[in-house]
Amino acid sequence: MESEHKRSWKAKLHEIIYEADTPAGKLFDVILLIAILASILLVMLESVNSIAEEHLSLLNVLEWIITILFTIEYILRIITVKQPLKYVTSFYGVIDLLSTIPKYLSLIFVGTHALVALRALRLLRVFRILKLARYMGASNQLAGAIKASRAKIAVFLFAVVIASIIFGTIMYLVEGEENGFTNIPKSVYWCIVTMTTVGFGDIAPQTPLGQFIAAIIMIMGYGIIAVPTGIVSAEYTKATGSKEKISDEEHEQLKSVILNTQCCVNCLAETHQDNAEFCHKCGCKLHHD
Amino acid sequence: MESEHKRSWKAKLHEIIYEADTPAGKLFDVILLIAILASILLVMLESVNSIAEEHLSLLNVLEWIITILFTIEYILRIITVKQPLKYVTSFYGVIDLLSTIPKYLSLIFVGTHALVALRALRLLRVFRILKLARYMGASNQLAGAIKASRAKIAVFLFAVVIASIIFGTIMYLVEGEENGFTNIPKSVYWCIVTMTTVGFGDIAPQTPLGQFIAAIIMIMGYGIIAVPTGIVSAEYTKATGSKEKISDEEHEQLKSVILNTQCCVNCLAETHQDNAEFCHKCGCKLHHD
Amino acid sequence: MESEHKRSWKAKLHEIIYEADTPAGKLFDVILLIAILASILLVMLESVNSIAEEHLSLLNVLEWIITILFTIEYILRIITVKQPLKYVTSFYGVIDLLSTIPKYLSLIFVGTHALVALRALRLLRVFRILKLARYMGASNQLAGAIKASRAKIAVFLFAVVIASIIFGTIMYLVEGEENGFTNIPKSVYWCIVTMTTVGFGDIAPQTPLGQFIAAIIMIMGYGIIAVPTGIVSAEYTKATGSKEKISDEEHEQLKSVILNTQCCVNCLAETHQDNAEFCHKCGCKLHHD
Amino acid sequence: MESEHKRSWKAKLHEIIYEADTPAGKLFDVILLIAILASILLVMLESVNSIAEEHLSLLNVLEWIITILFTIEYILRIITVKQPLKYVTSFYGVIDLLSTIPKYLSLIFVGTHALVALRALRLLRVFRILKLARYMGASNQLAGAIKASRAKIAVFLFAVVIASIIFGTIMYLVEGEENGFTNIPKSVYWCIVTMTTVGFGDIAPQTPLGQFIAAIIMIMGYGIIAVPTGIVSAEYTKATGSKEKISDEEHEQLKSVILNTQCCVNCLAETHQDNAEFCHKCGCKLHHD
Repeated sequence: MESEHKRSWKAKLHEIIYEADTPAGKLFDVILLIAILASILLVMLESVNSIAEEHLSLLNVLEWIITILFTIEYILRIITVKQPLKYVTSFYGVIDLLSTIPKYLSLIFVGTHALVALRALRLLRVFRILKLARYMGASNQLAGAIKASRAKIAVFLFAVVIASIIFGTIMYLVEGEENGFTNIPKSVYWCIVTMTTVGFGDIAPQTPLGQFIAAIIMIMGYGIIAVPTGIVSAEYTKATGSKEKISDEEHEQLKSVILNTQCCVNCLAETHQDNAEFCHKCGCKLHHD
Repeated sequence: MESEHKRSWKAKLHEIIYEADTPAGKLFDVILLIAILASILLVMLESVNSIAEEHLSLLNVLEWIITILFTIEYILRIITVKQPLKYVTSFYGVIDLLSTIPKYLSLIFVGTHALVALRALRLLRVFRILKLARYMGASNQLAGAIKASRAKIAVFLFAVVIASIIFGTIMYLVEGEENGFTNIPKSVYWCIVTMTTVGFGDIAPQTPLGQFIAAIIMIMGYGIIAVPTGIVSAEYTKATGSKEKISDEEHEQLKSVILNTQCCVNCLAETHQDNAEFCHKCGCKLHHD
Repeated sequence: MESEHKRSWKAKLHEIIYEADTPAGKLFDVILLIAILASILLVMLESVNSIAEEHLSLLNVLEWIITILFTIEYILRIITVKQPLKYVTSFYGVIDLLSTIPKYLSLIFVGTHALVALRALRLLRVFRILKLARYMGASNQLAGAIKASRAKIAVFLFAVVIASIIFGTIMYLVEGEENGFTNIPKSVYWCIVTMTTVGFGDIAPQTPLGQFIAAIIMIMGYGIIAVPTGIVSAEYTKATGSKEKISDEEHEQLKSVILNTQCCVNCLAETHQDNAEFCHKCGCKLHHD
Repeated sequence: MESEHKRSWKAKLHEIIYEADTPAGKLFDVILLIAILASILLVMLESVNSIAEEHLSLLNVLEWIITILFTIEYILRIITVKQPLKYVTSFYGVIDLLSTIPKYLSLIFVGTHALVALRALRLLRVFRILKLARYMGASNQLAGAIKASRAKIAVFLFAVVIASIIFGTIMYLVEGEENGFTNIPKSVYWCIVTMTTVGFGDIAPQTPLGQFIAAIIMIMGYGIIAVPTGIVSAEYTKATGSKEKISDEEHEQLKSVILNTQCCVNCLAETHQDNAEFCHKCGCKLHHD
C-alpha cells in the first residue's frame, strides 16, 4: 500500500518538524533555532557598512543558503500538514513566508532589502521552540496575574498618554519654538520621554517656568510607576495564593499537558495529554512510535 | 398639552446627550469622542509650521466646523438640563466652554490661538464616556488602594522635593556657574531630573566631587522608588483581599450602579441603580422608555 | 512672687514655641514655616544673577529681617527651655544656629555667602512642624517595613556600587580615553548613571563592544530594581497584616500620643499622652491651661 | 614530634586566614579588606592622568607593597590548605592570582597595566568577608524568592532583548543612517537604552514617525518593568509567609550555621554548625581552641 507508506513518511516528517519529543524532532528544533539566529546576525552585519562592503559576496552566499533552508522548511511544513491552508494563514505561517521571500523579490525588484529585516520577527519562534511562554504560564499563575492586571495597566498607560498630551500642549505654549518645542506633537513626544523617566535630553526646557513644569511632570511620572507595579504584584500574590488549592495530581497532569509537544497532523492543535490517543479538537488519531 | 410635549422632547434629548443606555445615546457619545479626538488632532497639526502654511484655509474651515459642533453641543446641554447653572459651573461645563470660545475670540483679538490648546483638557471626557475611571474603581479596590496610599506617596514625593532642594544647593556650591549650575533653582531642577532617574543630560556635573555627589543622589533616587511602589502594592493586596467578603449579590448590585449611565434631568446626579425610579439625590422622576 | 510669675511667662512662651496645641502655638508654627520657606526662596533668588543685581538692596534688607527673626526665635528657644544646652546641642539646635549666623559672619569675612545655603537644612523642620514623619509611622507599619527592609536594600545598593566598580573598570579598558572614559573614577560614575537608569548621555560608549557591555549593564540595572521594590512591598504587606491585631482602643491611645505636640519644659521630651500630667522621661510637671 | 608541631602551626594560620571566629582571624580579615580597598583606590588614582604624572614613583612603591602583601597572602593560603589545588582552581583562588601577577608581568612585558584592573574583582571578597550574601539569605527567604523568580525575570529580560531586536530593526528602517541609526546593531543598542528607561540621548529619533514609534517603545518599557517587580514581590511575600512555620529552635540552629565562619582545613567546605567536630563533607577533624 504505497499510499499508506507515503502517509507514514509524511507523519514521520510532521513529527520531526512540528514536535520535539523524539531525538530527530529535538535536533530539527535546535538546527532551526541556530538558523534563525544566524539569519538575524546576517541581517545585522549587512547593515554595518564597513562589513557589508568588505565581505559582499560571502554575505550574499550565506544569505542564499539561509533563504533556501527556510524555503525547504516552509515547503515541508505545508506538505506534512493535512490542512495546509490552516498553517499558511496562521501567525507563524505568515511570518515564515515573509521572512523567506524578500531574497527572491530582490532578484526582480531593487530596494526590497529592507524586507529582510522582517526576519527578526522569526525570533518570536524562539518562544515556541523553547516553550518559554508556556513554561512561564505553567500553573496559570503569571498568565492569570497579567491577564487580570492588563486592563488596569492599559488604563494607566492610557492616562500617561492623556497627561502627556495635556502637559505637552502646555510646554509648547510655555517654551515655544525657540527652545526646541517646535510643535505640539514633538512637545507631546518630549512629555512621554520625560514621564517614562527615559529623558533623552535632545529637547530640554530652557525657561525657568518650563523647568518648573518639567519637574512636576517628572515627579508625577516617578509616582505613577508605583501603581501598575503594585497591581501586578498584588494580582500575582493572589494568583499564587489560590494555586495552593490545586492538588499535586492535578498539577502533574497540567504540567504533562504543558510540556508535551505533540501537534495534531490534521488541525495543528497542541496541548495534548501525554497518554492522549486522539486529538481533543478534531478527533484525528495521534501517532505514538 | 404643548408644554408636556416640549418637556418630553427635552427629556429625550437629555437622555441622548447625558446618558448612554439607548442606541441614540451611544451614537452621540461615539460621535462626540471622534469630534474631540479630531479637534485635538487639528490643534496638533496647526502647530506644525509646514502643514499649517500649506493647508491654511482647509484647517480654518475644519476648525470652524468643530467649533460650531461644540457650540451646538454646549447649548443643547444647557437647554436639556433643569438647572443649567449647575452644568455651567461644573468641572466639565467650564472645560466645554473654554474649549469652544477661543475660535470666536480669535475674530476679535489677535494671538488667542494659544487658548485652543485648552481643548486638550476635553480629552478628560474620554474617561467619562468610556466610564474608564469608574470601571477601574469597580469593586472599590484600586480606588481604595490609591486613596490609602495617596498620603504616604505624597509624603515621599515631598521628601524627594526637600532632598532635591538640599542637594541642589550643595551641587550649586560644588559645581558652580561655570559647569551649568548657574543658580540654585536650576540646580534644584537638575537634582529632580536626576533623582527621578530621568537624566536629560543638558546639565551634568563636571568636577570629580560633583560627580561623586551625583552618584549618591542617583543611588538614593533608585532606592527611594522602592518605597511608594511597595506601599501601593501592599495596600492593593489588602484591598483585594477584603473584597472577597462582599457577597456575589452585593457585587452584582454594585456593578449595576457603576455601569448604569442614567443621569438625573434635574440635578445631573449619576450612579443610579438599574431599577431606580426616582433620583436618589433630588427625588426627581427618572424616565424609562 | 516675681519668680513664679516669670516662670509662668516662660512656660507660656515654651508652650507657644515648642508646642502646637493652643491657637498661639499653631500661629507661631505657621509663621515659622512661612519664614523658613521665605528664607529659602531668598537664597534661591540671590543665586540668580539677573535678579541679584537688580534688587540688590531689597534682597539685603529682606535677608536681614529674616536673620533677625531667626535670631529672636533662637534666643527665645534657649530662654524658655530649662536645659538650654540640650537644645543647643540637639540636631535642630545646631541647624538653627548654622542657618542664622552666616549673615553676621558676612559683616566680618568676605565670601561666607555660601553658608547661607545651609539654611536649606531648616526645611527639615517642616517634617517636625507638620508632624509628617510621625504621621507616616503612625501605626508603626511603614516605619517597621522600612526598618526591616533597610539592611537588605542597603546590601543591594552596595551590590550596585561593586558592580559599577567592576563594570566601570571594564568600560575604561574597552572604550578608553578617546571616547570620554578618561579615567576609572569617571568610568565608575558613568556606570552608576547607567545602572540606575538615569542616563545623562554626557558620556556614552562609542565602540560596538562598549555598547554591547553597556546594554548588559542596563538590562542588569533594570532587573535589579525589582528586588528592593519587592522587599519593601512584602515587608509592608507583613507589617500591615500584623497591625490588625491591635485593638481599636490601643490604636486610639497610640494616635493620641503621636498627634500630641506637648514638649517637656525641662528635657524637651515629646510623645506624651493626652491626659499625661508629668513628663514620662524626667518627671517634670506638664502644664495644662 | 616536629611534624605535628608544624601541622599545628599550619592549622593556626589556616584559622586566621580562612576563618573569623578568633580575634586574630577577625584582624586578618579587616586588614585584608583595607588592603583590597586600598589596591582598588590605587588603580583608580593611577588612571587619572594628572595624579599619575605627579606622583609616579609614590604610586609605584605603593603598588609594589600591595602586590607583595597579596603575594604573601596567596602563598599562605596555598600552604595552609591540605588540598592546595582545590583552592588554586576555586573561583576566589583564580581571582586572587589574577589580581596579584599583573605587577610582576609588567616587569617583563609592556602594556599589561590593564590587567591590574582585574583587581576590582577582588571586591567580591567583601561579600565573603562581611558574610553579606549569607546574612541576606539568612532565613532562606530572599534567596528563595530570588531563586523562584530568577527564571521568570530572565524570561522577561529575554523578552526585552527580543523586542529590542524587532523594534531596533524597525527604527533602522524608519530613521536611517542620516539620523544616527547607522546600522541595526546600533539601532538595537538604542532600543535597549530606551526600553530600560536609561535614555542617553546620544542617538535620538528625528523623524515624526520615528518619534511616534519611540514613544510606544518607552511606554512599553515603562509598563514591562511592573512585571518582574511584581513577581519578586509576590515570591518574597510567599517566602516570608511560609517562614513563620520554622520553629524558633530551628531558626537558631540555621543562624548558627550561617554566621559560623569555620572552614575545613582539608576541603575548604563551610557552613558547619557551631558544635560540629568533623567536616560534614570530607570527615576531616575541625579544630577548636
